[in-house]
Amino acid sequence: MRARIVIIGGGPSGLLLSQLLHLSGVETVVLERRPRAYVMARVRAGVLEWGTVETLREAGVGERMDREGFVHEGVYLSAQNRGFRVPLKERAGRPVLVYGQTEVTRDLYDARDAADGAVIDEAAGVEIHGVDGRTPHVTYRKDGRECRIDCDYVIGCDGFHGVSRGVIPKTVLREYERVYPFGWLGVLSESHPVSDELIYANSTRGFALCSMRNEGLSRYYVQTEVDEDPAAWSDSRFWDELKRRIPEAAADVLTTGRITEKSLAPLRSYVAEPMRWGRLFLVGDAAHIVPPTGAKGLNLAVSDVHYLHRALVALYRDGSEEGIDRYSDLALARVWKSVRFSWWMTTMLHRFPDQTPFDQRIQESEIDYLEHSGAAQTVMAENYVGLPF
Amino acid sequence: MRARIVIIGGGPSGLLLSQLLHLSGVETVVLERRPRAYVMARVRAGVLEWGTVETLREAGVGERMDREGFVHEGVYLSAQNRGFRVPLKERAGRPVLVYGQTEVTRDLYDARDAADGAVIDEAAGVEIHGVDGRTPHVTYRKDGRECRIDCDYVIGCDGFHGVSRGVIPKTVLREYERVYPFGWLGVLSESHPVSDELIYANSTRGFALCSMRNEGLSRYYVQTEVDEDPAAWSDSRFWDELKRRIPEAAADVLTTGRITEKSLAPLRSYVAEPMRWGRLFLVGDAAHIVPPTGAKGLNLAVSDVHYLHRALVALYRDGSEEGIDRYSDLALARVWKSVRFSWWMTTMLHRFPDQTPFDQRIQESEIDYLEHSGAAQTVMAENYVGLPF
Repeated sequence: MRARIVIIGGGPSGLLLSQLLHLSGVETVVLERRPRAYVMARVRAGVLEWGTVETLREAGVGERMDREGFVHEGVYLSAQNRGFRVPLKERAGRPVLVYGQTEVTRDLYDARDAADGAVIDEAAGVEIHGVDGRTPHVTYRKDGRECRIDCDYVIGCDGFHGVSRGVIPKTVLREYERVYPFGWLGVLSESHPVSDELIYANSTRGFALCSMRNEGLSRYYVQTEVDEDPAAWSDSRFWDELKRRIPEAAADVLTTGRITEKSLAPLRSYVAEPMRWGRLFLVGDAAHIVPPTGAKGLNLAVSDVHYLHRALVALYRDGSEEGIDRYSDLALARVWKSVRFSWWMTTMLHRFPDQTPFDQRIQESEIDYLEHSGAAQTVMAENYVGLPF
Repeated sequence: MRARIVIIGGGPSGLLLSQLLHLSGVETVVLERRPRAYVMARVRAGVLEWGTVETLREAGVGERMDREGFVHEGVYLSAQNRGFRVPLKERAGRPVLVYGQTEVTRDLYDARDAADGAVIDEAAGVEIHGVDGRTPHVTYRKDGRECRIDCDYVIGCDGFHGVSRGVIPKTVLREYERVYPFGWLGVLSESHPVSDELIYANSTRGFALCSMRNEGLSRYYVQTEVDEDPAAWSDSRFWDELKRRIPEAAADVLTTGRITEKSLAPLRSYVAEPMRWGRLFLVGDAAHIVPPTGAKGLNLAVSDVHYLHRALVALYRDGSEEGIDRYSDLALARVWKSVRFSWWMTTMLHRFPDQTPFDQRIQESEIDYLEHSGAAQTVMAENYVGLPF
């Protein structure tokens, strides 16, 4: 089998790239290791930057998103039981859209199916060959058969634990990492969200976040030890802890519901450079991870896709390699800005085990300054809604 | 002897408070441990916030400052040989004024002398008594004689190593501190400044700062080990190192001159709370220290003076204790904002011995973001020119 482009990974970034390229007349084959039902059930982020919204519309998958998503024009921050609102749209000119990654993935699968896009799921043992030469190919097993696709380019959209990044020689790959000494215990609750906008809470007991998916589905998180066992958290323990970390006014009106998902996520910042090696390109989590505090994970993957889509179209339409040559630098410039922002949000809002009283006061001063400075709110807002592509 | 108010310390904050209170009809006695010539010769900061400028004018000591000071409407930042300008006035509405602390001190002494203000120098062994009661007094030795001043209030303007802060019981005093793992080696050079505005340089070899006092007197700094011996730095070694840390365009036009002062300063953030205990008030370095990166030390002392002056005038004119009761909270709110800003500038611009490659990239991203975001520049500018009193 032969394809121009093989995309490894059928998550939102792989599907979106595949869909955008299809609309531009460049066909791809997407290989996904997991069954589709597994991919569709993964609970992930839910806050879309406006650039992400526009890219999804450009990909023709904006209809349900625009109908069912929730425009948020601000977020709340709280510290020591005092809260304030950062008016995102007023400060940065754009809001964000709350629409679950699960829904984005579903819309993309529907679009790919409608276009008869080649998405091969349960492709096992994917291996990438020859991307350092002119004739790469990808091998995998499907239904017990060994398969091979020869191609021009391979795109690694296979996440942090995927195989793509490992193809780049250690002598070439530069890795930057910070592992945070805590995790997020998150739940999905069948209840009305406590607030019409997100609440980011810094409390002496640790960070908490009140997020949402829709009118009847809430997403809540509390900072915990990094090796916490979710099973050790009964529902009532979770609700009690959450209520102690958010402002009383919010805790008083919090409606608890049936918890349908409870899981622990570690927090990590990671960047691999370069994002291109020969005929291999990395996209999204395959190249970089941010802690979820800034809601940047999916959005960064989308900006990578945006750059790479344009670069590949320029290549196939006009024969110009300039775009693909610039992809890594262009994507990384935006990646690092988001990595910085996510690090800043994380640092400002969490309790750190080695935090000195001085560090703690700096944190409080940062939040106090943010509450009272329009310029500081604009800085947060322009990053939160997404810096321009 | 009796006075309403005894001010410990004849540096700029003590003199300024004394002068402002005098203009408001409240006389003070200032006690200074050192000979006046020593105080006048101390080389210190040189960047005045606009609020400081206005306070000095209010104190009637603005004439020479306005004539001889240099209005700076921007500062330069550089990293990896790339520089850019932050237009302070354009972003924050106000410039800063370059006018040495030495000059400010001289102007204040002249004003105090002209008004026959009581400034007692070479007051040795100052001790503060009874500030926890209603009848404090201060004792000291002068010309071999034991002296005593009974007073209403004692103001500690005697710097970080002064005696005032130590009067507050350990059970009451809360201290917050960060000691930075490097120092600044600074020189005064009889040469034309390399640039008409300050240059803050982050380089792989460490931080450097090009500052100035006037057309013929430059002030330069390089980051060094915290225990560096200034004597180990020949003039040529200093110039060589400085040139390697600033952008080439600046290094190429740098004029070296006779170095008249060469000294090492450690970098520290420190805050003591509360700033009032009984009838003792702390002002400036007696209560807080910032690393010099943000040019905030003298300016913070001036805002403390501003608050305390108003509070004491309200007390003596109107009998209102509200101002002195609020002094500590009011001053500390602004102190912590400046401590945060100085910490941020320091963290962004220096090499840290335990800095990981990730930390380094975060630093570069911060500077990159600052270069390209108007909002980020406004945040820096409004802090650099000084948040409102």
